[in-house]
Amino acid sequence: MKQPDLQIVVDQIADEMAQQSERGVVADYIPTLASVSPSHFGMTIIDHDGNCYMSGDADVAFSIQSISKVFSLTMALGFVGDGLWSRVGREPSGSAFNSIVQLEWEQGIPRNPFINAGAIVVADILLGRYEPREILGEFLRFMHTVTGDDTITIDEAVAKSENETGFRNRALANYMRAYGNIENTVERNLGVYFHLCSLSMSCHQLASAGRYLMCGGRRAPGTSDTIISQQRAKRILALMMMCGHYDGSGEFAYRVGLPGKSGVGGGILAIAPGIASIAVWFPGLNSQGNSQLGSNALERLVELTGWSVFRTDQ
Amino acid sequence: MKQPDLQIVVDQIADEMAQQSERGVVADYIPTLASVSPSHFGMTIIDHDGNCYMSGDADVAFSIQSISKVFSLTMALGFVGDGLWSRVGREPSGSAFNSIVQLEWEQGIPRNPFINAGAIVVADILLGRYEPREILGEFLRFMHTVTGDDTITIDEAVAKSENETGFRNRALANYMRAYGNIENTVERNLGVYFHLCSLSMSCHQLASAGRYLMCGGRRAPGTSDTIISQQRAKRILALMMMCGHYDGSGEFAYRVGLPGKSGVGGGILAIAPGIASIAVWFPGLNSQGNSQLGSNALERLVELTGWSVFRTDQ
Amino acid sequence: MKQPDLQIVVDQIADEMAQQSERGVVADYIPTLASVSPSHFGMTIIDHDGNCYMSGDADVAFSIQSISKVFSLTMALGFVGDGLWSRVGREPSGSAFNSIVQLEWEQGIPRNPFINAGAIVVADILLGRYEPREILGEFLRFMHTVTGDDTITIDEAVAKSENETGFRNRALANYMRAYGNIENTVERNLGVYFHLCSLSMSCHQLASAGRYLMCGGRRAPGTSDTIISQQRAKRILALMMMCGHYDGSGEFAYRVGLPGKSGVGGGILAIAPGIASIAVWFPGLNSQGNSQLGSNALERLVELTGWSVFRTDQ
Amino acid sequence: MKQPDLQIVVDQIADEMAQQSERGVVADYIPTLASVSPSHFGMTIIDHDGNCYMSGDADVAFSIQSISKVFSLTMALGFVGDGLWSRVGREPSGSAFNSIVQLEWEQGIPRNPFINAGAIVVADILLGRYEPREILGEFLRFMHTVTGDDTITIDEAVAKSENETGFRNRALANYMRAYGNIENTVERNLGVYFHLCSLSMSCHQLASAGRYLMCGGRRAPGTSDTIISQQRAKRILALMMMCGHYDGSGEFAYRVGLPGKSGVGGGILAIAPGIASIAVWFPGLNSQGNSQLGSNALERLVELTGWSVFRTDQ
Repeated sequence: MKQPDLQIVVDQIADEMAQQSERGVVADYIPTLASVSPSHFGMTIIDHDGNCYMSGDADVAFSIQSISKVFSLTMALGFVGDGLWSRVGREPSGSAFNSIVQLEWEQGIPRNPFINAGAIVVADILLGRYEPREILGEFLRFMHTVTGDDTITIDEAVAKSENETGFRNRALANYMRAYGNIENTVERNLGVYFHLCSLSMSCHQLASAGRYLMCGGRRAPGTSDTIISQQRAKRILALMMMCGHYDGSGEFAYRVGLPGKSGVGGGILAIAPGIASIAVWFPGLNSQGNSQLGSNALERLVELTGWSVFRTDQ
Repeated sequence: MKQPDLQIVVDQIADEMAQQSERGVVADYIPTLASVSPSHFGMTIIDHDGNCYMSGDADVAFSIQSISKVFSLTMALGFVGDGLWSRVGREPSGSAFNSIVQLEWEQGIPRNPFINAGAIVVADILLGRYEPREILGEFLRFMHTVTGDDTITIDEAVAKSENETGFRNRALANYMRAYGNIENTVERNLGVYFHLCSLSMSCHQLASAGRYLMCGGRRAPGTSDTIISQQRAKRILALMMMCGHYDGSGEFAYRVGLPGKSGVGGGILAIAPGIASIAVWFPGLNSQGNSQLGSNALERLVELTGWSVFRTDQ
Repeated sequence: MKQPDLQIVVDQIADEMAQQSERGVVADYIPTLASVSPSHFGMTIIDHDGNCYMSGDADVAFSIQSISKVFSLTMALGFVGDGLWSRVGREPSGSAFNSIVQLEWEQGIPRNPFINAGAIVVADILLGRYEPREILGEFLRFMHTVTGDDTITIDEAVAKSENETGFRNRALANYMRAYGNIENTVERNLGVYFHLCSLSMSCHQLASAGRYLMCGGRRAPGTSDTIISQQRAKRILALMMMCGHYDGSGEFAYRVGLPGKSGVGGGILAIAPGIASIAVWFPGLNSQGNSQLGSNALERLVELTGWSVFRTDQ
Repeated sequence: MKQPDLQIVVDQIADEMAQQSERGVVADYIPTLASVSPSHFGMTIIDHDGNCYMSGDADVAFSIQSISKVFSLTMALGFVGDGLWSRVGREPSGSAFNSIVQLEWEQGIPRNPFINAGAIVVADILLGRYEPREILGEFLRFMHTVTGDDTITIDEAVAKSENETGFRNRALANYMRAYGNIENTVERNLGVYFHLCSLSMSCHQLASAGRYLMCGGRRAPGTSDTIISQQRAKRILALMMMCGHYDGSGEFAYRVGLPGKSGVGGGILAIAPGIASIAVWFPGLNSQGNSQLGSNALERLVELTGWSVFRTDQ
């Protein structure tokens, strides 16, 4: 498939999405998310040569929410290595992002690091080595390194709201603590967890952050800085493919065919391995809690570019 | 990654696997499977140029069992198109291959076509248009076409044994019939289903059969015959990636990184899109019902060749 | 509490129920049940002196359906004794009458003999000793003995309809057979099961049949014929209290306070131990599948007579 | 059945239980429970004439734990009436005392007030009207009134230990708060809940406390003081029968046939309506978390006295 002009592609997708009326529903469980206009959209593609293509509100920061689970997992694997997997599984959950039923069946071991329970265990693993402030400092440093942009910050108002309403996450954390899979106090743990979820980033910043996953662990195209090993990069992509969209992961793989991770703020980070890092933002969510138009936009992107990992013309 | 000599690769993997002592447990629910020696192994790679590399018992026929779900799905999509998806989902199951719990929760709609319940619905959809004999005739013709080998047959002794012991499948079929998602009588349905699962094939034949998935729907490298569209080939690969190893699909994606489908006879068909069709056979199963050494062999293959769909050096 | 005149009581309840507009919904899964008018009602009380009080259609036969589970359990315990309990539990189910989820969790052992799965095991236990025709013959003889009425018959049309539509029961039976808890073929088993459920009886006959449970195992007031031991009578009453109304058993105990068993035909048999055997029939069902006005009628009866087993003025 | 001499009965049961070697396992999740010797036993019967029969350690205080759920429910019904039932169900749970699965299925409404989740809602309902200290003060006053013994106290060391280890209860409370069925902060709620569970009472005191349930709501035999209405007393007894022994309630009804409530400290309160209030204490628990020998002792008591609510010789 001949590579099309990517700026034309992103502009075309922006036009098409602007005409769609089914935009999903903006998350409303905290005021800072509820107040976001569903008419926002943004898209950024950074390709393997480092070229950047943008459309819409690609420079407007939004709450990346669960997309940060990719970065906190990367950081935790860097700190503790594969020992992490004794406390978190690697299977699709087969249920909603915040289901507690599976935890009872599997005795406190979450099925993967991209559902809430799994990311709470990841935060607990980080707390086994560092103080909360250190973790957040390291996390921001990590994000500044992978993006090359040190203006990225945590939105304290979001973290505060999450903390005030996060009863279901408290239930998950306490439940796992009862099984010994959370070692820190729940408040200490969730203090970290909610902050990690409250990162504000634009599509441009998010696509920049995804470059190390596009590049087999190297920080960016054209550099030799290594963020993680190539092996680990592939494995994180596998986890994103299998578990990145909660109970809509199968649908995303079927329609889009790229590893991706969604957040309740309406963002999706998708990686075409070796080809491109892509971020989209459409705040309205579908019934699985994934960005409705974000999934559509990525489906169109893959139709126009042929970037599915399942393409056969290589 | 420079492409290694594939014959050396398959020989090396054969050697390594021969030395492994943890070989899993051979399925014993029917005599024809229970009597298979766990010391068998076979491996075949057919690459995008049509070259074939084999080791071990690559020409010995075995019962491909659930691997046939890939082929019956392909055939059913050819007959009825995407309307099929109103009766079967596309999500990983999050539970064992024969679980009935999910069917109660989702009111008779199986989560995907590669668990038993899903393949039973596929058989029912075929029965909506054809008589049982016609379906089996068409199925064999399809297998003869995609392999170019008209010696492939259904093992009637296996089909008979499956039929005699298939109480759990009868439970699944009756349960779905109670919800109206099975339209034929259960015995008529399972007669077809059990025969479809009882195909005997060698690794060589199986890898040949997988060529249309490697080649974007074309029958084989170097031909222009089309079995299915490129779009459909990609989507079937996505389903294999997400759901091909039951509740071990995440682990297979993490370790191997290729779309694959396993069978309880110990076979696995894996596809490196655009690169190779691979079949392995090691009869011993792990606790999820997937071939223990088969998974190991494929993990080594990907380490030696770099064929993961998540590789980033393209 | 002074014993009121029971004929006045049954007439008063008949009047009150006739004025209620919320009558529930008649079961419609088979034609013979769907065609029953929801305006029917019947009530019979037989007291410990053998006096009989009736109102409404107390002499009209209806399909007693699951109420027969009490009688088939009684007969099976007579044949095989307490060994029966190795294959059936004695706990409330916590779920719907035809749920299959619990069977997966508890590996083929139904929670009690009054849900469908449990009664199917009871039929299987009977088949361990007798041919289907013998069982039905013995069952009718048992019913003729306990009622003193040899006109009671099985409605073959109902049995046939049940057989034609009983997919969920087939799922349950096959599922338990997969775990080895059903020893006969499913068709042989369900042939018996569906016939046992298809008994036609009037309220008068049903209240007569319940006398042995009112009388501690003796056939009727004033006789010394023993149907079962006093110990066993008490235990069957305990099971009726705990499990007799599916997932509405707690509500029935709370509001009525008597051991009872409902059927989807709209009948309820309730026993005031040592005091009375009571049968009511109102075809409309509530959301748990129990007779809506039947429960109300029994609640009123207990208010007017003080017969709850939890009364404290003894 | 002629009434036997009850002192002989309690002594005989004490002897029999002393000879049993299967004593179950003492709860060990908090030190104050783990340190209790499994060789303790105590039994008290208070009959409808107010006579008291005791054996063993009937005057030794132990932690009544969940038995207090009967008393907190009584008090809450007194304060808020039947409106309580909009937030708690009345059905047996069909699962373990601390299961969270059911809460997800039924969207935050616990199945009954005698499982932990239900009693936590009861505490929350009390907190809707009173401050924590007031509730505990009222609760002790209530216990002093019903027992006629104002030495009964809450064991602060137990409450503190419960609070330190109660992660699963925190999970339940947070989970229900996410559904809006807990209105107070979880810490405020559990502070009350854990204190209510930490009452120390002897068998003698517990049997005294149960008199109002034996007497149809009157405080004690021979008085006209009313604690609750007769209607409410019957209903609480119905709830105890259906839900008093968690997922062993059916077994208790089958073997004993009396409304009862167990606690993890090894106590059981059982009521023979209109006849006797009975307390037993054997610290060893069976697999459902109910006193192993306590159940056996009550089964023998009913065999020797005929007090089952299902007896038919009245």
